[in-house]
Amino acid sequence: MNWWKVLGFSFGALVVLAIGLLIGHFGISGGADPEWVKNLAQDLDEKFIQQFMKEVDTEKIKENLRTLSKKPHVATSEADEELVQLLLSRWKDPTIGLDEAKDERYNVFLSFPDENNPNNVRVLSPEGDVKFESNKTEAQLTEDQKDPNILQPFLAYAPNGTVKGNLVFANFGRISDFQYLANIINLNGTIAIVRYGGTGRVNKAINAAKYGVVGVIIYTDPKDINDGKSNPSETYPHSWYMPPSGVERGSFKENFGDQLTPYYPAKEFTYRIPESEIRGISHIPAQPIGFDNARTLICELGGPLAPESWQGALGCNYNIGPGFRPGNFNNSEVQVNVYNKRTIRSSANVMGLIRGAVEPDRYVIYGNHRDSWVHGAIDPSSGTAVMLELTRILGTKLKSGKWRPRRTIIFGSWGAEEFGLIGSTEFAEDYYSKLRDRTVAYINVDISVFANATLRVQGTPPAQGVVFAASKQVKTPKNDLTVYDNWKNHSNRTSSQHGVIPQIGTLGIGSDYAPFLHYLGITCMDIAYTYDTRVTSARIYPAYHTAFDTFDYASKYIDPGFTSHQTVARTAGNVLLRLADSLILPLGARDYGETLDGFYKQAETFQTNLSKHNISLEPLKWAINRYKAAADSLEEVIKTLSDSEKTPLKIRMINDQLMLLDRSFINNFAFPDKLYLSHVLWATRSSTVATFPGLADAYQTAIESDVEHEWDLVHHQLTIAIQAVDNAASTLETVTKI
Amino acid sequence: MNWWKVLGFSFGALVVLAIGLLIGHFGISGGADPEWVKNLAQDLDEKFIQQFMKEVDTEKIKENLRTLSKKPHVATSEADEELVQLLLSRWKDPTIGLDEAKDERYNVFLSFPDENNPNNVRVLSPEGDVKFESNKTEAQLTEDQKDPNILQPFLAYAPNGTVKGNLVFANFGRISDFQYLANIINLNGTIAIVRYGGTGRVNKAINAAKYGVVGVIIYTDPKDINDGKSNPSETYPHSWYMPPSGVERGSFKENFGDQLTPYYPAKEFTYRIPESEIRGISHIPAQPIGFDNARTLICELGGPLAPESWQGALGCNYNIGPGFRPGNFNNSEVQVNVYNKRTIRSSANVMGLIRGAVEPDRYVIYGNHRDSWVHGAIDPSSGTAVMLELTRILGTKLKSGKWRPRRTIIFGSWGAEEFGLIGSTEFAEDYYSKLRDRTVAYINVDISVFANATLRVQGTPPAQGVVFAASKQVKTPKNDLTVYDNWKNHSNRTSSQHGVIPQIGTLGIGSDYAPFLHYLGITCMDIAYTYDTRVTSARIYPAYHTAFDTFDYASKYIDPGFTSHQTVARTAGNVLLRLADSLILPLGARDYGETLDGFYKQAETFQTNLSKHNISLEPLKWAINRYKAAADSLEEVIKTLSDSEKTPLKIRMINDQLMLLDRSFINNFAFPDKLYLSHVLWATRSSTVATFPGLADAYQTAIESDVEHEWDLVHHQLTIAIQAVDNAASTLETVTKI
Repeated sequence: MNWWKVLGFSFGALVVLAIGLLIGHFGISGGADPEWVKNLAQDLDEKFIQQFMKEVDTEKIKENLRTLSKKPHVATSEADEELVQLLLSRWKDPTIGLDEAKDERYNVFLSFPDENNPNNVRVLSPEGDVKFESNKTEAQLTEDQKDPNILQPFLAYAPNGTVKGNLVFANFGRISDFQYLANIINLNGTIAIVRYGGTGRVNKAINAAKYGVVGVIIYTDPKDINDGKSNPSETYPHSWYMPPSGVERGSFKENFGDQLTPYYPAKEFTYRIPESEIRGISHIPAQPIGFDNARTLICELGGPLAPESWQGALGCNYNIGPGFRPGNFNNSEVQVNVYNKRTIRSSANVMGLIRGAVEPDRYVIYGNHRDSWVHGAIDPSSGTAVMLELTRILGTKLKSGKWRPRRTIIFGSWGAEEFGLIGSTEFAEDYYSKLRDRTVAYINVDISVFANATLRVQGTPPAQGVVFAASKQVKTPKNDLTVYDNWKNHSNRTSSQHGVIPQIGTLGIGSDYAPFLHYLGITCMDIAYTYDTRVTSARIYPAYHTAFDTFDYASKYIDPGFTSHQTVARTAGNVLLRLADSLILPLGARDYGETLDGFYKQAETFQTNLSKHNISLEPLKWAINRYKAAADSLEEVIKTLSDSEKTPLKIRMINDQLMLLDRSFINNFAFPDKLYLSHVLWATRSSTVATFPGLADAYQTAIESDVEHEWDLVHHQLTIAIQAVDNAASTLETVTKI
Repeated sequence: MNWWKVLGFSFGALVVLAIGLLIGHFGISGGADPEWVKNLAQDLDEKFIQQFMKEVDTEKIKENLRTLSKKPHVATSEADEELVQLLLSRWKDPTIGLDEAKDERYNVFLSFPDENNPNNVRVLSPEGDVKFESNKTEAQLTEDQKDPNILQPFLAYAPNGTVKGNLVFANFGRISDFQYLANIINLNGTIAIVRYGGTGRVNKAINAAKYGVVGVIIYTDPKDINDGKSNPSETYPHSWYMPPSGVERGSFKENFGDQLTPYYPAKEFTYRIPESEIRGISHIPAQPIGFDNARTLICELGGPLAPESWQGALGCNYNIGPGFRPGNFNNSEVQVNVYNKRTIRSSANVMGLIRGAVEPDRYVIYGNHRDSWVHGAIDPSSGTAVMLELTRILGTKLKSGKWRPRRTIIFGSWGAEEFGLIGSTEFAEDYYSKLRDRTVAYINVDISVFANATLRVQGTPPAQGVVFAASKQVKTPKNDLTVYDNWKNHSNRTSSQHGVIPQIGTLGIGSDYAPFLHYLGITCMDIAYTYDTRVTSARIYPAYHTAFDTFDYASKYIDPGFTSHQTVARTAGNVLLRLADSLILPLGARDYGETLDGFYKQAETFQTNLSKHNISLEPLKWAINRYKAAADSLEEVIKTLSDSEKTPLKIRMINDQLMLLDRSFINNFAFPDKLYLSHVLWATRSSTVATFPGLADAYQTAIESDVEHEWDLVHHQLTIAIQAVDNAASTLETVTKI
């Protein structure tokens, strides 16, 4: 062999070796490159989201809604149970279902009208003759209203009784309204008729009782709900407006959750407080009526003319009473008869679950209630129709092996929401520890479509970014704008970070997000399509809680074509997938900084009076600055994370910081008088100043009483606020900072 | 070229290719085999533990103790501040220090004797002559007692006042003791002398006040602390026993933490409640005295002879009074004069930190208080001397690059513990969210050596396994047994799972673990070396809280040679390293099952009476069975985990379940009257029945009063217990179980 041959062969061998090295290193997976390394990096697939959105089908949603709203299905009724079975069968379906589904029952305290003894409002002559009696039911304007299972108009938990007195008109029934009346007339022993709006339903009666009123009648003024329209020909079935006989039903209490088992799931063996210990309910009878009946009463009232702002659209002058003017009801009194039945019944939640592939111990929860007052086409079936369309598409992908989310997704169909968010609250109590420790976010879609104009989102600040991201990827049904741009046109604000952006609303206690937000401290959002407030001033969609909230109503007047439902499904589903699938949670920490700045600015209006009592806001400022620095720094870390830094535990660390951010604002000792309300930023507040609710309310009380002890309570609430902000900052700061 | 050559070269090329493939696949790390895959699997290194234990040096501990106890260093004193600097300099040292160290200050509410106006107890003749006055200070038996900075005997927070009355002897000052007296004599307006033991310090006065007693004197009976010895020649400096002039100082209140800022860190701007709102303190003056002074008073008492069990070792018959028998103190009354000063002072915690390499957001905390009543050689410097030896060894390994723990380790030197766990409680409040969400366990080593006989550990059940594992690797200083076997010989129980094992005690509220356990729900343990109870019946080591708890005392009588200190350092350090370094947390879930079984068994003694009020224990049984099944299944998962299943997120999921187990027993609404106490299993209890404390106490009240409402509260507490057990089960169950 020649030297050149040796060289040649050697070179050849080297080339072959090099090829071997390259193939060996890059081409073979195995022991040194475990499969899980790739799996743990599973991230959001934008193509999957596009595919999901494409598959959202208006026809399917429409058929869901038709099925869901076929019968009146008040909580625990036979029809409600049929829907439980429907949900179970959908979610257990082998081709379109989820990994698991089950129903879970609680024995909850409910209140129903007595069908054999209907509540009523009467006008009684001095001789005892019944000169007028309110309708027992709503008018039968379509076949739907003929259903024998329609729940008669009533206020759940309103106490029973027969009370009689002179009628007075008390506007919205706010404290200020009764105070106005009390300055002019004697309210003792009267019956007050008040209109919906202005304050919470039960607060009208609680306020009334403080002024000696013995019974309350509530009605919906056409001015507030119908843009003034009150003629039958202008209202449903001829338009979306409430017919004259329509009555808004509702729960008549302040606190949510099962009233007999606060903080504990209402199981059979759970201790129940005596009914006498229930707080936040009315102690005087109350009954709702339609505006046709209200017109009969109000237009006959005597006494001085009510103020201009109290006048409604019943077509007469509203006097305040007491009692009727000379005429048909001369010297007559009004009697309110309430015969409600309180009872404990078994109510079901239905839960469906998709196991997370990578982080099964992180939950994204999506829910809505199932129970309605009557047919509940809009409230809540419009939301459930959307939820079932989401689970159909995702279930199909899941069952065909095309997709499994990074995190676990839990769907909830809550029971007995209309009675006060009972199913969701019992769920939060029953699953307390694991929900608290593992839940990334809760998405609520109750009424999905109020109207067709624009997206409307309420949520805590960390949810803003993901909702924006989703809404930028969806087109509106009506124009060529994205949902995001259309929303921004309807409602916007200027953000110090983002410029002009759509306005996200704050969450109260109005739907099933409340226990998740206020009790568990979970980042929450509530998503819907809604009105153009430039076009209608309706307080809510006019058939709300009446026997006219039907499939016919929804498909004719709320969302013909179901394209708004489709838009909500696309947006909410997009949000859900981003939360469940993104490697790094799409929750914003800096957005809370803007909220805190806003709160501080509002609190500064207290400064002069605080200074007089040696209370300084400076430490709150320091805490907020600390928060903002921590949020800036965490978001910078996320933005500049290199691929090699994206190790599973580093990502998990950051995600835990984001997940637990809202949790860090929870303080179980902050509001001892407010059941469940522990979120220091979002608890309810009476004051109109949009700052920390405990601080705002304590300040208002102190100003009104000017007792030194009340200023102590202001200082205490300020300390609570500072502590909460410091805790949140500390959650976001470098984890090894001491 | 021939065919055989072609074949030969081809074969050669294949061999070379194969070599290349093999080297390429296994020999080169890089993109496809990221370094972090190995790093994230960092696990405990048993060799490192052995090395650590070998390096624990008795001489270093001894020198630490000498330095720490050189001066009296009550909280916030100049000497206390010097120790703050000492700790900072050790922990910031470039060769033996930690990654970070800092001091953090709180403005806390303290109480001190007035050195210009010493508290005293006097005997006053009817003419007002002072026939006797208690010692202002303890006897100067060694140089140590001559230190001008020794804090005069007092009870912190005991209210000021001058009260006078006939003396009575009230044994331990328990309710039952006063009840016994009240049946025989009139207690109104009397001064009670009581001995330490039997009930909490302040409870003696709180109980006394209920019976009309106007002042309390507390002393230590030689029977309870000195095995009956009371002669100067038998006591320190001639033995470990308390000298006749020794006075136990102490905090005189029920609740821990800064009393003016409950639930909030005591920063400058924090709201402070008025002193009048402090709960759980005495409203009558009280003062401690030595047994020499107590003998003078008690041996002169008249009235009936006290019961046999009340008799002590003062060498005379104990009569109960009221007043003195004829003799020297004829017709004399006793006066208690208290002149304490309440004040707000800045107290420091010192914190040191070692960053975790893999899970920086998981904390193992190790702490002890720094402040003493006088020199505090044993209490608390024996613990701090051990802590400083641990940080020296670990700091050296760290700074030389030989070790970095998997998780973050935080060392804490707490301030103002003697006044009621103040520094640790303020820390828990200030760092609430991150401690709650990230802390794996808290190890407390306060008094590290009470005596030389055996290890003594108190802790929650999940801590049992790791303490056993560590104690099996350490030899006792005195015999050839392991610490574990020696401990088992001294104190054991039969476990249904493990057979005969050492007995782990339960944690009360006696040291700095209390806020971590009761407020934050963190798995805690307290580690020390202690007595052989067969050899001594001393209630605690006799120099406790006196001016005789000095280096001289410690090194002569408590631990000559410092080998028990070394043993505790090895054991506690071993535990610390296991918690900080093990891939899977060494916390046991099944051990809580045994605790729950025990609680249930005790609760069953209530069954007959519960049944009479329609309360069933069955649901509690179901919950406990659910817990046990969940714990069994989780431990089985851990045991059978294959290497390929040990992915970082799977391990983290399991570890989070274990970390959060104690947290799941927390219920902030369970005991509204008990400050900070939220752990449903370990809150304080008055009942002697070792079951759920809320249930046990409610049951006792119901039995005593037999009012129906009290049985409601029993049912309520049973619900709380069930809810807690269910929550714990749910934390351990498969994370996707709904």
